[in-house]
Amino acid sequence: MGDTQGRVPVGIIGASGYGGVQLVRLLMDHPQIEIAYLGGDSSAGKSFSDLYPHLGHRVNLTIEPIDLDAIASRCQVVFLSLPNGLAYNMAPKLLEKGCKVLDLSADYRFSNLETYKAWYGGDRNDRDVADTAVYGLPELYRDRIATANLVGCPGCYPTASLLALSPLLKQGLIVPETAIVDAKSGTSGGGRAAKTHLLLAEADNSFAAYGVARHRHTPEIEQVCSDLAGHEVMVQFTPHLVPMVRGILATVYANLRDPGLVREDLITIYTAFYRTSPWVRILPGSTYPQTKWACGTNLCYIGIEVDPRTDRVIVMSAIDNLVKGQAGQAIQCLNLMMGWEETLGLPQLSFYP
Amino acid sequence: MGDTQGRVPVGIIGASGYGGVQLVRLLMDHPQIEIAYLGGDSSAGKSFSDLYPHLGHRVNLTIEPIDLDAIASRCQVVFLSLPNGLAYNMAPKLLEKGCKVLDLSADYRFSNLETYKAWYGGDRNDRDVADTAVYGLPELYRDRIATANLVGCPGCYPTASLLALSPLLKQGLIVPETAIVDAKSGTSGGGRAAKTHLLLAEADNSFAAYGVARHRHTPEIEQVCSDLAGHEVMVQFTPHLVPMVRGILATVYANLRDPGLVREDLITIYTAFYRTSPWVRILPGSTYPQTKWACGTNLCYIGIEVDPRTDRVIVMSAIDNLVKGQAGQAIQCLNLMMGWEETLGLPQLSFYP
Amino acid sequence: MGDTQGRVPVGIIGASGYGGVQLVRLLMDHPQIEIAYLGGDSSAGKSFSDLYPHLGHRVNLTIEPIDLDAIASRCQVVFLSLPNGLAYNMAPKLLEKGCKVLDLSADYRFSNLETYKAWYGGDRNDRDVADTAVYGLPELYRDRIATANLVGCPGCYPTASLLALSPLLKQGLIVPETAIVDAKSGTSGGGRAAKTHLLLAEADNSFAAYGVARHRHTPEIEQVCSDLAGHEVMVQFTPHLVPMVRGILATVYANLRDPGLVREDLITIYTAFYRTSPWVRILPGSTYPQTKWACGTNLCYIGIEVDPRTDRVIVMSAIDNLVKGQAGQAIQCLNLMMGWEETLGLPQLSFYP
Amino acid sequence: MGDTQGRVPVGIIGASGYGGVQLVRLLMDHPQIEIAYLGGDSSAGKSFSDLYPHLGHRVNLTIEPIDLDAIASRCQVVFLSLPNGLAYNMAPKLLEKGCKVLDLSADYRFSNLETYKAWYGGDRNDRDVADTAVYGLPELYRDRIATANLVGCPGCYPTASLLALSPLLKQGLIVPETAIVDAKSGTSGGGRAAKTHLLLAEADNSFAAYGVARHRHTPEIEQVCSDLAGHEVMVQFTPHLVPMVRGILATVYANLRDPGLVREDLITIYTAFYRTSPWVRILPGSTYPQTKWACGTNLCYIGIEVDPRTDRVIVMSAIDNLVKGQAGQAIQCLNLMMGWEETLGLPQLSFYP
Repeated sequence: MGDTQGRVPVGIIGASGYGGVQLVRLLMDHPQIEIAYLGGDSSAGKSFSDLYPHLGHRVNLTIEPIDLDAIASRCQVVFLSLPNGLAYNMAPKLLEKGCKVLDLSADYRFSNLETYKAWYGGDRNDRDVADTAVYGLPELYRDRIATANLVGCPGCYPTASLLALSPLLKQGLIVPETAIVDAKSGTSGGGRAAKTHLLLAEADNSFAAYGVARHRHTPEIEQVCSDLAGHEVMVQFTPHLVPMVRGILATVYANLRDPGLVREDLITIYTAFYRTSPWVRILPGSTYPQTKWACGTNLCYIGIEVDPRTDRVIVMSAIDNLVKGQAGQAIQCLNLMMGWEETLGLPQLSFYP
Repeated sequence: MGDTQGRVPVGIIGASGYGGVQLVRLLMDHPQIEIAYLGGDSSAGKSFSDLYPHLGHRVNLTIEPIDLDAIASRCQVVFLSLPNGLAYNMAPKLLEKGCKVLDLSADYRFSNLETYKAWYGGDRNDRDVADTAVYGLPELYRDRIATANLVGCPGCYPTASLLALSPLLKQGLIVPETAIVDAKSGTSGGGRAAKTHLLLAEADNSFAAYGVARHRHTPEIEQVCSDLAGHEVMVQFTPHLVPMVRGILATVYANLRDPGLVREDLITIYTAFYRTSPWVRILPGSTYPQTKWACGTNLCYIGIEVDPRTDRVIVMSAIDNLVKGQAGQAIQCLNLMMGWEETLGLPQLSFYP
Repeated sequence: MGDTQGRVPVGIIGASGYGGVQLVRLLMDHPQIEIAYLGGDSSAGKSFSDLYPHLGHRVNLTIEPIDLDAIASRCQVVFLSLPNGLAYNMAPKLLEKGCKVLDLSADYRFSNLETYKAWYGGDRNDRDVADTAVYGLPELYRDRIATANLVGCPGCYPTASLLALSPLLKQGLIVPETAIVDAKSGTSGGGRAAKTHLLLAEADNSFAAYGVARHRHTPEIEQVCSDLAGHEVMVQFTPHLVPMVRGILATVYANLRDPGLVREDLITIYTAFYRTSPWVRILPGSTYPQTKWACGTNLCYIGIEVDPRTDRVIVMSAIDNLVKGQAGQAIQCLNLMMGWEETLGLPQLSFYP
Repeated sequence: MGDTQGRVPVGIIGASGYGGVQLVRLLMDHPQIEIAYLGGDSSAGKSFSDLYPHLGHRVNLTIEPIDLDAIASRCQVVFLSLPNGLAYNMAPKLLEKGCKVLDLSADYRFSNLETYKAWYGGDRNDRDVADTAVYGLPELYRDRIATANLVGCPGCYPTASLLALSPLLKQGLIVPETAIVDAKSGTSGGGRAAKTHLLLAEADNSFAAYGVARHRHTPEIEQVCSDLAGHEVMVQFTPHLVPMVRGILATVYANLRDPGLVREDLITIYTAFYRTSPWVRILPGSTYPQTKWACGTNLCYIGIEVDPRTDRVIVMSAIDNLVKGQAGQAIQCLNLMMGWEETLGLPQLSFYP
């Protein structure tokens, strides 16, 4: 692994879920980072290789109890990879002790805590801290992330949805209330806790929607869409479960304001919009993204179609839900916060097929 | 296999594709049918069990060349399970000789041959025959099918899409031009001919759209929607490939005309609409169909949701693309044409999981 | 569902697992059976369609508490589909009250209760009852099953393994101690209880062995092999998990005693051995069984190869682990016990692809 | 991509198959390599990103015709990734012009050309060149590879099989003629050319053996086993197709010479045997390798079990068939040939799950 001198010591709290193990995997290959603390409750005391024998040859770490003082004393940056509702009891203390914090849960994604409470419940009194949080979607909020101490990393579906929708809303090209996001995710998005409906015997060779008209990622998507449109926007969001491990495809529909726009116009607009975004790839005409292309990488592939019969635009975006949709994007944010290159240490080549 | 006396002799032309093998499988278990002719070009002369060794213990048939005279002399009913553009050279002759014909290709799905030519090409002069064809969706055209001699069996996507959309359009509950069908299919829909993008190594663990804004099932869906609405309707249709063998889920979006309608209203309306349709199952509230539930059967499961925030209805329909979406539906039509019970000989219980 | 008059009333105890739901599915289509009792502990009081909405249109049953008196008063036959170690507290009472009992667990598979205890633990004093149990593999013990009141249905792996091995051992064609069974199963064999390693996100796109040299199906295989060979035989058995829902393939290796035997000899011997077994299909030379061919049916496909370089025979057997490996075989046994045709009510055609 | 100055220019002939695309992917991330020539027949003239749009942002190369003079003038090293039977017409000329050659086909795997001809056919007169070829399994032939100019890279199955078997044979721990390799591979091993049996609709949710007792990897495994044992050894080899994209698991059985050996002894022996092999990982007791752990990396995971009941050893080895089983191992060989660290530029962390 080489020399760790001069590397930034980071902590990961919640190391045993898919978010945690992705963070470990990606940070192991990051040239400027050293993992200095791996914290977990149920797995405290275990070696990381007890949980993941196949990573034992590279990752020689023991999972420690979640002791915020110890974490803060040893880490400059802390990733919180925990279920919703836990981070807001930890982040304030870590910030106070001088750590930068990247939260992968929903706790710091909302500028309006009432929205959070309405969709996630819970009783929290950390408005002052929450007000300092920046939504960690670098393609939209790069500058604010660069100076933030607290980043609320986006959900997996919102990442794919917003990267597809943003240029349209920002440029006022669509009628916002016509926006529909039909999203499809691999089952790893449901986490590593054992649930019957996520068993291979149940989920394989089947396909279905869930959380129709009430999935918690809806207000998160709407918050950013409203920000981009300059007024409140409601979005129809429907998630589906795909019989595969990783990947999200969002198929986005919206009515064009100007029926004269053709596909090539939009490809030009998207390309310009993401010119400075190394992790977004606009595909040429008639090429539509495969989730497989993104898997293992921090990339988002975007394909664009215009239907001249209906004056609708259809945008498809593909990401790896655990990388660009979770751990990779958090590291992308960290790169910005540390003043490093945005691509530093993140994988660019999917291992297709 | 028991006694075949008194059974109706049927022919299947095109026995080696997925449509053909499904027809064989289903007709073998049909109590009123006897397979009297199995016709194929490339496989003529072979035993059916050469192609499908696992069916050899039940199916003792040899594939014969496609000889229309011989077919007509031995068969009362003929299923054409061929690529598009072949049936319209065979069906007229078979009809003339007194056979009933069920065509599984696109050739007889369109009441307007100009629409057919615009989307499928080809030069055909069988308007007189085509005018007698009935679109084989029993849930909508049961009576006409019962008296037809020529049935154009629906495509797999149109079957799922139209069963989801019909009650809404028929009752004028939605704004037709807001209808969007985001459909997802297992790869068997692509047929049994070897194509690189349908290889397991390519298609597994990936998800993508294809044919966006230009798939040939679009005009077929629109033709029936227009018929139901009483005026021309355009529908946004987007197919996707799911990494699984069988099954289609159509997720249908539309704006409600009357924002006061709630989910239970629509469940009641759908239940009434399909009261006499034994193959359509309306699910209770908050239950969404899994494609797996339908696989192996001729059933269509429909789940309904209303989003009171957006005044949209979201309808999900699940079918087995090779049964209700193809061979099973053809047999359902045949049951009607012969005056038999609509459910005769068709499987009702998926072998879940 | 038609008339149930004159049908035999049966009970199923343990209706919510994969074994139970298969029994329900298969018995619904059995022409001589009526399901008269569906018993369960955790799910008592629920409607069957609460658990399996997609079967609600055919199965109108409520799950009742496990009350042996009530069961015996209403049922002529009882299927026990429970975890190991429960049946031996129920079967004796049900038998005493005059029921025929088919147990799908391991409890009544062993003629030697010491073997049971050594591999499964538990403290049981039902030797008298256990001594009357017949091992429910009809292809070997057809006559004994026909007169039994208590049948211990085989495990899924033993079914596939023994159907492949039996002709070789019975005829003394192999050196018994060289027998190796390398078996591969879909994940539904692990049951419906949620376990992390059976999640799609864990098990899909991966392959591994488990329980090497210590799987509990080993003594069951050995018991029958010893019976066939006429002396004690030890078999090397290794199970693997395949990223698919259903199906078992057993690849069996053994050294031939007579190196002069060729493949066609063995095909002839196997065909003769299974001549009266409608559920076993011997494949022609160079054709090897696909698990998919058997799925949904009660069939076992067997392919045979001889390697003249090594004087080994390689036999491959494919079954559906939940049908021939579990619920279907139990019904096959019931057919024998009731004097019905062995194939009655059981599916013969896989719904390939 | 950074500076390419001082990098070694390499050519890849046969860029459009899975071997080629893996080489491109892996070499793009190799710090000492520059891809200087991408040669193909059918795809000559196309941009690499025409074939693989998702790699276009990193790989800016055009596929050129296979012109050996041009290749030799621009490349120091050439990878041949072609169907069997083509390399032996190219390698001699490239070697003559001073290139080092790594062949991924079977052409240079055999020290005895008669064995090659018996199993692969063809008429070749390059014995002089073939005699200089080294079998590219670094864990066994590290020193010879380091000084070779022509390397015949092993097949995927032989790689997994031999890494599992070698310590046993080398140390004389087993009775060689009892060795059985029951191997299972993802379907990408069948290549990217469209074949019906590799379609997702055919291969998914199924499992079967193929090439029983006659697969061409048999003599390759036997050649190395014989070399290790010091006398001719025959091995029973059976490949199977797993419904997944990537990965091979080999389950190896053999009778121990010394029944006193326990699992821990063998773990110690294997650990010592592979002490200097950074790409082989011996797992602790009771831990068996998942193919998923290796996928995307050049690693081979080995799990070991001893059955004291049968005195057999069971060894399981897991690799990525396209990396350690193909392109990655070729690069590992190149690293040795160039005097670089054996691990240089090759991925070590699977992107689990």
